[in-house]
Amino acid sequence: MVNMKIGIVGGTGDIGEGMACRLSHKYEIILGSRNEEKACKASECTVELLKERGLKACCLGGANQKAVDEADIIVLSLPFRHLESTLECLTGLENKIVITPINPMGKAKDHFYYDRPEEGSAALTVKKLLPESRVVAAFNNIAAHKWKILDEELDYSVAVCSDDEEAKKIVMNLVNDIPKLKAFDAGPLAVSSIVESITPLVLNIAKYSKLKDVGIQFK
Amino acid sequence: MVNMKIGIVGGTGDIGEGMACRLSHKYEIILGSRNEEKACKASECTVELLKERGLKACCLGGANQKAVDEADIIVLSLPFRHLESTLECLTGLENKIVITPINPMGKAKDHFYYDRPEEGSAALTVKKLLPESRVVAAFNNIAAHKWKILDEELDYSVAVCSDDEEAKKIVMNLVNDIPKLKAFDAGPLAVSSIVESITPLVLNIAKYSKLKDVGIQFK
Repeated sequence: MVNMKIGIVGGTGDIGEGMACRLSHKYEIILGSRNEEKACKASECTVELLKERGLKACCLGGANQKAVDEADIIVLSLPFRHLESTLECLTGLENKIVITPINPMGKAKDHFYYDRPEEGSAALTVKKLLPESRVVAAFNNIAAHKWKILDEELDYSVAVCSDDEEAKKIVMNLVNDIPKLKAFDAGPLAVSSIVESITPLVLNIAKYSKLKDVGIQFK
Repeated sequence: MVNMKIGIVGGTGDIGEGMACRLSHKYEIILGSRNEEKACKASECTVELLKERGLKACCLGGANQKAVDEADIIVLSLPFRHLESTLECLTGLENKIVITPINPMGKAKDHFYYDRPEEGSAALTVKKLLPESRVVAAFNNIAAHKWKILDEELDYSVAVCSDDEEAKKIVMNLVNDIPKLKAFDAGPLAVSSIVESITPLVLNIAKYSKLKDVGIQFK
């Protein structure tokens, strides 16, 4: 067990629950939600699911604030439109590693587009809202529901951006702890807008090339 | 031999010469340049190089205008800063397929960034400058010098964008004619900015992950 706790804010979606399933045999996970009961149920499901696979999971549920309070690494598993209102209700994120997999997107008549925030990217928006946190962009380009299909390995690349070199290394190790996922250092947080924009691109490729769940690999 | 001629404007760089080498056994190629003599020499080298490999190449050299006049498909192998001035000197591009592999980029202190043109992307700029042409964005994310290392196959994905469905299909077939390259329909030209921005991203990944010639695969 790695001596580091991961709190997932908005943890009852596909990404949160899938991440819990894929990491809770190695890290202690706290699934957070506005709905505490829902988070507790999701954590129990995770423990049960891994037990069926012969794995001992360490996964608790609770309010989003509990996920922040108890964890060393916080994952913001939220749509961009809920980012600011959610962070306004949370305290104590200073000096913690905050991972953002958030991709601001829109849908035009015939394609998905990157809906660039005023600050340049979702990660730069998080940095502005949480100037004292160690913000890292990661896990941006993995289809949400792929996380929960435990029988499939996530054979993808993950571009990781941060202005905090130490935090970036810790998150890259976390990425590499998930079988087949491979972390790539993509440089400072300023690069995050490109990483985030790949998600609408792969959605367009899936739509136009008639594929399901397109991901990327760097090679 | 496919009954289609490809003219490469700015064809004496790595991309043009490499593309000629990889396609001139199947397509007739005209390498264009501001320097006609240089283009002729490059085309002779291509023919020679393929002859050594037992392949019969069909590759001519000449002025950029000749590449445009004689070809059905034109590749703009140019840096973005030379795009407008080069197109101003050329005529007769109407109704032809024009491929842009152009990526407008800049370099900040610690990273490469996508230098978004006013029109939204290089491909949209080409469309504005050549409203009567069938503009297709393709081949954007392959490292220029990889094109010329003929002993290495280009095992990458190529996102192809266009508002002209027929032109897009022709270019996707062209991409798939190069062994291992795989074309993906990424939708309309509006998506091209994301595709172009992947090039500064992979340059950052190469720099920060200490890798050489990073490319991408969709999967």
